[in-house]
Amino acid sequence: MRTRPLKVALLGCGVVGSEVARIMTTHADDLAARIGAPVELAGVAVRRPSKVREGIPAELITTDATALVKRGDIDVVVEVIGGIEPARTLITTAFEHGASVVSANKALLAQEGQSLYAAAEQHGRDLYYEAAVAGAIPLIRPLRESLAGDKVNRVLGIVNGTTNFILDKMDTSGAGYSEALDEATALGYAEADPTADVEGFDAAAKAAILAGIAFHTRVRLDDVYREGMTEVTAADFASAKRMGCTIKLLAICERAADGGSVTARVHPAMIPLSHPLASVRGAYNAVFVEADAAGQLMFYGPGAGGSPTASAVLGDLVAVCRNRLNEATGPGESAYTQLPVSPMGDVVTRYHISLDVADKPGVLAQVATVFAEHGVSIDTVRQQGKDGEADLVVVTHRAPDAALSGTVEALRKLDTVRGVASIMRVEGE
Amino acid sequence: MRTRPLKVALLGCGVVGSEVARIMTTHADDLAARIGAPVELAGVAVRRPSKVREGIPAELITTDATALVKRGDIDVVVEVIGGIEPARTLITTAFEHGASVVSANKALLAQEGQSLYAAAEQHGRDLYYEAAVAGAIPLIRPLRESLAGDKVNRVLGIVNGTTNFILDKMDTSGAGYSEALDEATALGYAEADPTADVEGFDAAAKAAILAGIAFHTRVRLDDVYREGMTEVTAADFASAKRMGCTIKLLAICERAADGGSVTARVHPAMIPLSHPLASVRGAYNAVFVEADAAGQLMFYGPGAGGSPTASAVLGDLVAVCRNRLNEATGPGESAYTQLPVSPMGDVVTRYHISLDVADKPGVLAQVATVFAEHGVSIDTVRQQGKDGEADLVVVTHRAPDAALSGTVEALRKLDTVRGVASIMRVEGE
Repeated sequence: MRTRPLKVALLGCGVVGSEVARIMTTHADDLAARIGAPVELAGVAVRRPSKVREGIPAELITTDATALVKRGDIDVVVEVIGGIEPARTLITTAFEHGASVVSANKALLAQEGQSLYAAAEQHGRDLYYEAAVAGAIPLIRPLRESLAGDKVNRVLGIVNGTTNFILDKMDTSGAGYSEALDEATALGYAEADPTADVEGFDAAAKAAILAGIAFHTRVRLDDVYREGMTEVTAADFASAKRMGCTIKLLAICERAADGGSVTARVHPAMIPLSHPLASVRGAYNAVFVEADAAGQLMFYGPGAGGSPTASAVLGDLVAVCRNRLNEATGPGESAYTQLPVSPMGDVVTRYHISLDVADKPGVLAQVATVFAEHGVSIDTVRQQGKDGEADLVVVTHRAPDAALSGTVEALRKLDTVRGVASIMRVEGE
Repeated sequence: MRTRPLKVALLGCGVVGSEVARIMTTHADDLAARIGAPVELAGVAVRRPSKVREGIPAELITTDATALVKRGDIDVVVEVIGGIEPARTLITTAFEHGASVVSANKALLAQEGQSLYAAAEQHGRDLYYEAAVAGAIPLIRPLRESLAGDKVNRVLGIVNGTTNFILDKMDTSGAGYSEALDEATALGYAEADPTADVEGFDAAAKAAILAGIAFHTRVRLDDVYREGMTEVTAADFASAKRMGCTIKLLAICERAADGGSVTARVHPAMIPLSHPLASVRGAYNAVFVEADAAGQLMFYGPGAGGSPTASAVLGDLVAVCRNRLNEATGPGESAYTQLPVSPMGDVVTRYHISLDVADKPGVLAQVATVFAEHGVSIDTVRQQGKDGEADLVVVTHRAPDAALSGTVEALRKLDTVRGVASIMRVEGE
């Protein structure tokens, strides 16, 4: 074994960073044996240097992250700051000064993946980011490496633990959204400002990363269609139950049937209770992958949290260190297919539509005509009258989203339709 | 991209090999883009050269596998023959002549992994074998690489599709073992001689491989405790249902609580319906991994079949080819912990014991005394009388297997115990 240690700079020492530092210290012998050389924590950049950080020698702490990544003797920079800046500049500077980079930064990877990969390649260094998607669940590496000889057609996943906790709570307790969110906040599953989670921004960043890797193309955050889950109601769950379904916030990346384009989207959807994703409880994540040869695979585990995320960071750290010793690099960006990303209107899906209609003859015929005019075929209709009004629930067959949303717009204009109580896509069948 | 192709020799062209050859041909451009150089099928060693093999040029076919691996211009040998010999000699010869090796051979890896790794290292070549365990499911790579910075404590998996199909059939239809086996045979899930599957030999080989990788030590096939599932009855399933459980043939690799040893075993066990493995249906495989930092992960997918296994082989082929271009090698054997493998008697588990006893006063006291004398604590007792006899079902708390099996031996000697109807371990709680 080489005795000269590989030097690691840690940018950020919050929930994830402190756990990375702790494991690097307590498991130093194991890491050395697995890498083939010892690893040394050479510096830790933080914002609040006065905070007590157990197990980290005070002389390693610095507030000058830029000077740390510019030192020139750093082999690997671990970036767990999050956000776009200063993370982007620090990572680029790290490459320029000869370091490889392990990052857990989904927002940055989704937005700037291309330029970061280019910088890594220019300087002959690695960019690894298993921790950026679904915490501890090995997902980036299986997609980039295990399935490198296969053709992935679909990635369907629960990639945000906060929203899965809220939806699971609504499902099992009958709670409304606000009540479930309050519980998630009280238990620490939701942040004080939950926007990034509940509006689907976090999941959309992960969808962009997954789609790019799965289809060997570039998918930007702006390419991802996004709907949050704040408008999911207890009534939606009741409807889902009647269909033998539950509701999950899904990130869905698909190759079009003709293979000429891809789509990426995040929205709440009904999925059958028999689907493996339906039984993913609490804050867990799970990702379903469909590939030509492999068939259907699922990866399941904790999608967030300090320790699970640190596990993913350290797995990458071991790989990057091994590459350094080999004077090699792992797989870089693979975007050779250059497949375009189609808009949401081209996605083929099914709608579950719940309408408040007048309970009188001819209404169903009117509604059915609107579907027919938009070329949307109806799978099931269920109508329940009450006091001169009726709930009319229509579940469609598969159709382009543009046709489905066009149908809904036309339904809204019918005099006999008092309102559209809910619209939800149906997936996973 | 490099234009000179990497040359691949294929040993075996059955269900898996023919699919590997097909994908190498039909997806040649994708593989080239992902590797950074074209790959060329340079030779295919078969036993029956006269068989028509669609898509494989006749001039590539040879019956002389030894000459093929000795050619000297082969970059990667893909071994999908199975069995110990001639596979072992061919792989060793391949290393000696400068090739890296991708194998799907679980029996060989379980029995000869150490010497094969040594040969690979001696010649500076790669040995990859993702396809040897759980078909298409990425499992070896996540354990070897993604979790390389973590401490794995437990691997609990359904790693044999044939037996899972049979047990699932017994569970859902109430069929007996023979009837379910017949259906598995008719559908092609079981071989004409199902011994390797139903007696747990196949799963034991996979358990040896998984335990070695998970705990960074050497676990030989002989170290794995093995019980088949041919004696599981419809009555066992009825008992399991009453406990809120089902029955699965599990491969279980564990680190002892004190960390100083490991165990590996294969046997049928009751697991709670709430456990993610309980809902693994048909011939699917799934493996649950528990690690210090990552927590609980699960990997699910098709565990066998030509296409899924080929997917895993091709993922390894891409990785090994990339390493060749980098003039590097991936991770080799990691057995530095040198943890000993403890015998089955040391495993801590729970027993579900079903006894036929005389239905008269004092029997329960006698039985309970035997448990107490062996230091085994009882969790639940259920007794149901019929015609002077009674079924007595005892579920224990956790205890060493030696104490539990000692208890059963002593129970058999009691006059009031007419017979032991079934014994099954309870796992996954």
